[in-house]
Amino acid sequence: MHKWLETHLNQLNVVNQMDFEKGFTRLGYSTEEMQAHEEFKKIAQDLNLNVTRDAAGNLWAVWEVEKQAPLIAIGSHLDTVHSGGGFDGAAGVLTGLAAIKHLKDSGFSPKKNLAVVCFASEESARFGISTIGSKAVSGLLDKTSLEQITDANGISIREAVESFDLSWENIEQAERDHNFLESFIELHIEQGTRIEDQAKDIGVVRGIACPIRLKVTASGMANHTGTTPMNRRADAFAAIAPLIRYVEEQAHIINEEQKVPLVATVSTIHLSPNALTIIPEEVELGIDIRSVDDRLKNKMAAKIQQFCEETEKDRPGVSIQLDKLVDNASVFLDDEVQRKLTAASRQLGMEHLLLDSGAGHDVMNMTHKWPSGLLFIPCEKGISHHPKEFASTDDLWKGTQVLAQYLKNEAGGLS
Amino acid sequence: MHKWLETHLNQLNVVNQMDFEKGFTRLGYSTEEMQAHEEFKKIAQDLNLNVTRDAAGNLWAVWEVEKQAPLIAIGSHLDTVHSGGGFDGAAGVLTGLAAIKHLKDSGFSPKKNLAVVCFASEESARFGISTIGSKAVSGLLDKTSLEQITDANGISIREAVESFDLSWENIEQAERDHNFLESFIELHIEQGTRIEDQAKDIGVVRGIACPIRLKVTASGMANHTGTTPMNRRADAFAAIAPLIRYVEEQAHIINEEQKVPLVATVSTIHLSPNALTIIPEEVELGIDIRSVDDRLKNKMAAKIQQFCEETEKDRPGVSIQLDKLVDNASVFLDDEVQRKLTAASRQLGMEHLLLDSGAGHDVMNMTHKWPSGLLFIPCEKGISHHPKEFASTDDLWKGTQVLAQYLKNEAGGLS
Repeated sequence: MHKWLETHLNQLNVVNQMDFEKGFTRLGYSTEEMQAHEEFKKIAQDLNLNVTRDAAGNLWAVWEVEKQAPLIAIGSHLDTVHSGGGFDGAAGVLTGLAAIKHLKDSGFSPKKNLAVVCFASEESARFGISTIGSKAVSGLLDKTSLEQITDANGISIREAVESFDLSWENIEQAERDHNFLESFIELHIEQGTRIEDQAKDIGVVRGIACPIRLKVTASGMANHTGTTPMNRRADAFAAIAPLIRYVEEQAHIINEEQKVPLVATVSTIHLSPNALTIIPEEVELGIDIRSVDDRLKNKMAAKIQQFCEETEKDRPGVSIQLDKLVDNASVFLDDEVQRKLTAASRQLGMEHLLLDSGAGHDVMNMTHKWPSGLLFIPCEKGISHHPKEFASTDDLWKGTQVLAQYLKNEAGGLS
Repeated sequence: MHKWLETHLNQLNVVNQMDFEKGFTRLGYSTEEMQAHEEFKKIAQDLNLNVTRDAAGNLWAVWEVEKQAPLIAIGSHLDTVHSGGGFDGAAGVLTGLAAIKHLKDSGFSPKKNLAVVCFASEESARFGISTIGSKAVSGLLDKTSLEQITDANGISIREAVESFDLSWENIEQAERDHNFLESFIELHIEQGTRIEDQAKDIGVVRGIACPIRLKVTASGMANHTGTTPMNRRADAFAAIAPLIRYVEEQAHIINEEQKVPLVATVSTIHLSPNALTIIPEEVELGIDIRSVDDRLKNKMAAKIQQFCEETEKDRPGVSIQLDKLVDNASVFLDDEVQRKLTAASRQLGMEHLLLDSGAGHDVMNMTHKWPSGLLFIPCEKGISHHPKEFASTDDLWKGTQVLAQYLKNEAGGLS
């Protein structure tokens, strides 16, 4: 199967050889995403799967053994960020198809319908909105709120969707009811190094840590750096700077006290006027806080708020404002599905790691409606959203085997 | 004289009424600076001064009583920064002319030659090079090193100088020998609030604090903020951030321990990639350190270096580099001239403040060759390089009187 995985990884990426320099740019609802979908369709049809396209542009490749019965589905997406890698999304679609191929090659005959789904427009790179295809399927798409959104070239989502041979008016018809699926599994590259660090084979995800995002704005007074004495200043940067290390320290403390990990990062700054001879007047810091335990995220946000209030008291002339830009509750995946994925790994003699995901995926929509699970395979150095993104064929094969075993266990056929 | 000062302040600013909204943009060697120079010439000629223009475009307005004898000169500049105020430079030129007018009105007849000089291109706003006119006069202009420099529109200094009706080849001919001047005095707005804070009338400057400027570059590793555990990070921003407050704290400590003040400011930052979902990979901080005591500047720079070295040891994965961009020795003005300016203030019943200048001025070049002094008058709230820059006519008049008294004392005539 190694050869098959490599050949078809290229095919899904629409290349003869993977490109680790320029990477891949297949934005959501673009011609490039469409070309990759065409390749998906060819591979699925070669496997004798019945491919249909829904109203949101998602492709469903079905191995049907019983009319009108629920599907056991596996899938991910084929769109990418700007200059992204060829594994984020593609690894899940590829191993889904490979699992079907592996079952067929081994003579397995399922008692339930199996499917591989290729979701449309998962990345937020084009429109700032992620997972459009899987939102539509699970009934979470708020069409009205999207109508005004355009990409960097002024093309609206409506126009993009219609150029993808779809009808904007009908996009919500992609929604499926509870009976449509029995369960859904996504496989994705880890985008981290925990599986590798702990020398495990595969990751079974428990929860997806959705962020709280804060903006802290400190406002002081600009003045000449040379002529303004130290005791006559209202330096916004000197005032707020201790918060940067504080956020890191408090994240460490929370991690020592708690079992569930939390990450918190001061990752952006805008300083004004940012001139060597002028005392900083205004500083805007952007903070990203994630944990699958929402209480911990709120605890971290409360610490930051308290720190800002104390700083404001300590620094006359500097005012500090805290804005919550995003507050998304974290998502927990189905316990029973986790148990089944763990069992499938064990059956194959693989060691699994139970872990959480710091990034969002299509599965976080699917789990709102159907029992869903997420498998991680390692990716080199944790690099992702980058041309150098890489997952080995050995790891793709391990993932394929776990997916196939899960399907075997679930579809209860003969092999 | 109040009316004369107000009318001629407008005239030197080439307006009928001062503009505190848009301010003034008269860049060095521009048409706008030339227009202001033309007005200077008219005012000087109305005072029966003999105006000549040197090879660097400086104007010398001379009250000659003895051929070939040294001048006692007063002056400043008329160019401004982008959207600057109408007092930085203009106040010194105006009060110089007003002092001559005051002496003439009072029937004073000097025994020595007196002059008012209007230097060309003092601000660094256009070419990044300050005090070009006074550098040329005092023989400090390095013509060769300037030849490649252009402004934001690609115009070279050579082209600008030639459009100012000068010859680039001859610019160094503006240099004067030791016998040309007996002494030089500049009057300038304080660009700070110390005179006002201490309820004094005028400032007599002892030293000019030229800066040490440092660039600190911290380099870590970019990664996903959501998927990278706290203990697997090399966050350049969290690593270097404590330096920002440290610089402020250490400047306060030095000021408590020492008599001579020091200021130190982390005033610029460039953070890369500056994206909410990516851990900061590289941070560049710009630091401006000033004191007339160069030992204190070096002490501060050494503390910063030690802090960076310790931070680098404490933070595996983050490397820190310190570059010294500028290290200009501070300038001390002539003790005897300070004493004379102080005496002139006392004669007029004014209370003076001895203070240092945190910003550079034309006088810092002149003092290399001739006994020189710098007088400060207050400016509202210390605001400068800004349309709202303002000095009251009362303060301009106080400055005028001190300059006139100094000239009287020096030129030893009859009144």
